[in-house]
Amino acid sequence: MIVLGIDPGLANTGYGVVARRGGRLVALDGGVIETLPEAPAERRLADLHAALAAVLEQHAPGAVALEDLYFGQNVRSAFAVGQARGVAMLAAGQSGIGCFSYTPQQVKAAVCGSGRAPKEQVSWMVKTLLSLAEEPARDHASDALAVAICHCNHAPVARALAEATR
Amino acid sequence: MIVLGIDPGLANTGYGVVARRGGRLVALDGGVIETLPEAPAERRLADLHAALAAVLEQHAPGAVALEDLYFGQNVRSAFAVGQARGVAMLAAGQSGIGCFSYTPQQVKAAVCGSGRAPKEQVSWMVKTLLSLAEEPARDHASDALAVAICHCNHAPVARALAEATR
Repeated sequence: MIVLGIDPGLANTGYGVVARRGGRLVALDGGVIETLPEAPAERRLADLHAALAAVLEQHAPGAVALEDLYFGQNVRSAFAVGQARGVAMLAAGQSGIGCFSYTPQQVKAAVCGSGRAPKEQVSWMVKTLLSLAEEPARDHASDALAVAICHCNHAPVARALAEATR
Repeated sequence: MIVLGIDPGLANTGYGVVARRGGRLVALDGGVIETLPEAPAERRLADLHAALAAVLEQHAPGAVALEDLYFGQNVRSAFAVGQARGVAMLAAGQSGIGCFSYTPQQVKAAVCGSGRAPKEQVSWMVKTLLSLAEEPARDHASDALAVAICHCNHAPVARALAEATR
């Protein structure tokens, strides 16, 4: 199973590609897609879409995982993040790939064992769980890898539940 | 000048195509794009994108006009509308068409002469300004035509200002 985690934003979108290989998780790719601050928003969204489409084509993930809205956000930032998130979900939908949303608490619990873990702990656990040489250089990349790990660890449970209730 | 107004939403997206012909405005097209409520969001966004891309290709507008965030919205609805709005802006950006945002007050003022006009008055003025036989059947289509009218009436002023400050 290959999962693409995305932490969307107009200026910086983190992405992380995680695969389950036998009993353990490995990172296949990860980074931050940046858009030009001086470009109009519609151009930046088009650049973001093209970059994500290239990642989807390269890795052909079976699922896309995204963090759900953080409820502490204000209306304006929710609106701005929503625009980038819509473009990310669209890229998945155009490739026929399902999207799965997790709350920040679910992601932290999946990665650190506690829904209230601080940011630095998430980054350190991402490094540890994926056997990386060092922590991801950028928070957005770390967060994207974390939500991908979260989906990898939830997906077998979700599948078992779906099969049990058939 | 042809302007595409969009009132974005995941379930219902209003659109309206307005052209300036001599001294008056005419409606070339308008309606509501609906997505399947039972489909996953990424599929609905992909369907919305395809429908908007078809409208853009058919009418080749010189600009896309959208209402800005309504500040009374709560965080969750701002997030949901933002996703559909991002997809609409993306479709414009992919066609190299600029997007212009107007507050609800600006739209009402442009259409009704008052930023506090009630909804029914907007619909009635849209019918009158565009010489339609009757008011648009759906609020989303009426709102999309209204924001397109707003851009048609603002654009000459914006252009004159840009030229004056060169």
